[in-house]
Amino acid sequence: MPEKNASKNSKPTSYMQRMKIKHIDIVAGKLIGIMNVIDAQELGMLPLDRAEIKNPKNGKFLNVVVDTTDSFVKEDEIGVFEGIHKFIGVNEGGIVEVKPAGKPKSLEFIKKKMNGEKLKDIELKQIVSDIASNRLSEIETTAFVSAVYMKGLDLEETVSMTKALIENGNKLDIQGKTCVDKHSVGGTNGRATMIIVPIIAAAGYCIPKTSSRSITSSAGTADAMEVLANVSLSLDEITKIVKKTNGCITWGGAVDLAPADDKIIKIEYPLSLDPEGQVIASVMAKKASVGAKFVVIDLPIGPYAKIKNKETAERMALKFIEVGKSLGIKVEVLLTNGSEPSGKAFGPALEAKYAMEILEGKFFDNLAQKSVELAGALLELVGHADKGKGFDVALNILESGKALEKMKEIIKAQGGKIFSSKDIEISKMTKIVYSERSGEISSINVSLMNKIARIAGAPANKTAGVMLKIEEGEKASKGQELFEVYSENERKLEAAYNFAKKNDPVELQRIILQKFS
Amino acid sequence: MPEKNASKNSKPTSYMQRMKIKHIDIVAGKLIGIMNVIDAQELGMLPLDRAEIKNPKNGKFLNVVVDTTDSFVKEDEIGVFEGIHKFIGVNEGGIVEVKPAGKPKSLEFIKKKMNGEKLKDIELKQIVSDIASNRLSEIETTAFVSAVYMKGLDLEETVSMTKALIENGNKLDIQGKTCVDKHSVGGTNGRATMIIVPIIAAAGYCIPKTSSRSITSSAGTADAMEVLANVSLSLDEITKIVKKTNGCITWGGAVDLAPADDKIIKIEYPLSLDPEGQVIASVMAKKASVGAKFVVIDLPIGPYAKIKNKETAERMALKFIEVGKSLGIKVEVLLTNGSEPSGKAFGPALEAKYAMEILEGKFFDNLAQKSVELAGALLELVGHADKGKGFDVALNILESGKALEKMKEIIKAQGGKIFSSKDIEISKMTKIVYSERSGEISSINVSLMNKIARIAGAPANKTAGVMLKIEEGEKASKGQELFEVYSENERKLEAAYNFAKKNDPVELQRIILQKFS
Repeated sequence: MPEKNASKNSKPTSYMQRMKIKHIDIVAGKLIGIMNVIDAQELGMLPLDRAEIKNPKNGKFLNVVVDTTDSFVKEDEIGVFEGIHKFIGVNEGGIVEVKPAGKPKSLEFIKKKMNGEKLKDIELKQIVSDIASNRLSEIETTAFVSAVYMKGLDLEETVSMTKALIENGNKLDIQGKTCVDKHSVGGTNGRATMIIVPIIAAAGYCIPKTSSRSITSSAGTADAMEVLANVSLSLDEITKIVKKTNGCITWGGAVDLAPADDKIIKIEYPLSLDPEGQVIASVMAKKASVGAKFVVIDLPIGPYAKIKNKETAERMALKFIEVGKSLGIKVEVLLTNGSEPSGKAFGPALEAKYAMEILEGKFFDNLAQKSVELAGALLELVGHADKGKGFDVALNILESGKALEKMKEIIKAQGGKIFSSKDIEISKMTKIVYSERSGEISSINVSLMNKIARIAGAPANKTAGVMLKIEEGEKASKGQELFEVYSENERKLEAAYNFAKKNDPVELQRIILQKFS
Repeated sequence: MPEKNASKNSKPTSYMQRMKIKHIDIVAGKLIGIMNVIDAQELGMLPLDRAEIKNPKNGKFLNVVVDTTDSFVKEDEIGVFEGIHKFIGVNEGGIVEVKPAGKPKSLEFIKKKMNGEKLKDIELKQIVSDIASNRLSEIETTAFVSAVYMKGLDLEETVSMTKALIENGNKLDIQGKTCVDKHSVGGTNGRATMIIVPIIAAAGYCIPKTSSRSITSSAGTADAMEVLANVSLSLDEITKIVKKTNGCITWGGAVDLAPADDKIIKIEYPLSLDPEGQVIASVMAKKASVGAKFVVIDLPIGPYAKIKNKETAERMALKFIEVGKSLGIKVEVLLTNGSEPSGKAFGPALEAKYAMEILEGKFFDNLAQKSVELAGALLELVGHADKGKGFDVALNILESGKALEKMKEIIKAQGGKIFSSKDIEISKMTKIVYSERSGEISSINVSLMNKIARIAGAPANKTAGVMLKIEEGEKASKGQELFEVYSENERKLEAAYNFAKKNDPVELQRIILQKFS
């Protein structure tokens, strides 16, 4: 039977060559070995094949993806990126043994998904583990991400994927406390997290919140919180802080809760892919990794949000709940209105200031409303408040000033020194955009506002951004202030202002929609 | 209307920064710019975003894909790979202006294909042109290749793809001659091309054959021809040679007939993808680029061939013909038996010697038969021979010695010095594998034979390989010679022999198929 033979020969007995290590101090962590075309040919290898690099003295080895060059690396040399030579214990110029190695098993499973077949638990685990440990190249990981996008993951696969992401990352373990968490499936401004976390922590529940930095918006929660305190905290630091204060708001990128997920997200970015199954697995893995047992998921729906329609949101909601069940996590999903700005601020410092003002009781707007609703839902879910009473309980914690006190505790525990909205520094250089005519504000384009804030310098420049002066539904008269742009750099301020003037992010209702002549 | 605004803002007015060029002499040709995370943040850029790098002195610019580092490149520096600094005319340490650039339009089209939509002619052209000119990253190209694999290309798309590949590559133009070509859709040994080309050229038709080197087999046609002559020829050299002799056998990799295709094939390799539409476009583009007007396509079907069943072959055959029509090329597709070895040789020198022996009339076996049949089909297609008479005409050219004379002319024109099979050097060190029992040869595993030849050193070592001593259907007695392994390196010979002994590439018919007890 030819099949019998075919299966035997997956790892041919192969010839080995001795080479000298050349260290390349770029792109740390990638398991790539660059060899001269002559050596590659001698070993019968092509770019993207695998080679084993072994230290003959201690037997330590690593498999790398081969790339070839006809100049950069000389014959009998192998170029490796940072970390590889340390791992096997060979210095620059040291001798290693190089030989062809088999392909990772996960390539077969990726092909299987590309062919539309369902993947088994063990197969998804192998893929995730190979991505996490850099055993798959970017090309191979992209093929997987594309397959998940085009063929989807069913519920069972989503559960497997979630568990695989959890297994391959770090975990937080706050003993003796009930941990809860919340997550918004992106796309809006406003830092609800900075209001929800202190409310929940003040109510006595542990909420170790890890947040992201901005990818395409003008600020992520981590960017805004960084205005007040340190957000690059280790797992040990987070544990200490949460044990003391019940809550924290830190940057997730510092703790490697799901390293495979971070790599997948990097690949999804240029093509703006976010396959549903992957989003759900990604979110739920991170919630499980921080030990949350009760989770509220906020799915904003709107033209500028990630989720554009109710059907998608409903389908995702059911999956979130099911995946939660399989992990022993009680999940509640809230579909929210994501069609208008949450609050009026865009940019790290402006958004931090705005959230602090809500905690200080200076005003109560749609961002405050949303935050209290989400906090209330979480308090009902965990059994702290009766059904229908969560909002009132949460509102009381906010209005009593307990949430503000808790926030100050958290800021202090995270090494911060700013405890009041008035101490937050905002750029002094500003430019106001005025309404060119009168009418009702029919729509404020959140994507454009984010872009204006970015051109002004946010989020790299924390004090830059945009502050709205109006809200949707309001009547504006000609010459009225619409929004103010903040920047520390004259050129950036000018560029942001000009972009704003050109693109009309504030839409006034029109009576004449179109003219024919 | 938010949509109106959204469409306006694809290229935000953005801030620019001056940076110093740092040249990295690795991975030539990739349009990548590596900047410090601080600068990237300042510009509001993430890895895989696009940046424009401009020489302020001459206004020359290039768009690159951004990668970030926190050590390798300092602040205010931008690391670029070979070629970029030359293109814009800035030396190491010279100043360039860097600013965010929009995404290539083709990313949208790739996403469209991922969503299962049909691509327009102009969209496929944009994608191919962006791949050819390195404007798409490996991740983005992989997403396209994966989408083509999973969603397919219909006939119209295949035609567009073919034309796009042709437009983006070099072209051969042999004026005043009727050009023909042949192509085998891989997977078998034996160099039919080295017999067909001289027959056709001797008959008076121009056949500028470009061939590939081995990817997974023990020799490609280019590897075997290189034993006799120079195969790395430029388009000008090919034109000169073909004008003089009517034919050539050169390495396609030297002439960039379809550079986008070469990049796509590189990406398909690690996942062994070859989407049908892509294979057809790839082959037909190369045939059109050499100016062929009549083409015979050989589709070997068999367990070790690329095409495993007749249904696939039939479907592909119809597509080949249709794509040919759209290009003004008359195509004939021949489904051939690819289930057994073509001839008895594996490895560049052994296969070259074997083909020369057929041209010299030393024997006439299944490889000779196949070659003459394909040559005959081509002679009928071009109208040189009447229907049904092609085989006889081709056979006559072979038996008369005219094909051999023509081959010598071609070898000479390609700068070769070996004109006879007896002058081809084969490794002296050999080891014979004997039959361990008697029986009828039921199957010879071509994949395993290729692997044995590769372990022995082929194709890098041209004189290494395997020579069969038996053929399928023959009766072997115990102790009879089955095949001989050739190598110039004792360790490789030993490794190849041991692999052969362990894996039984020659299957003897068994009476008892399985035992139960």
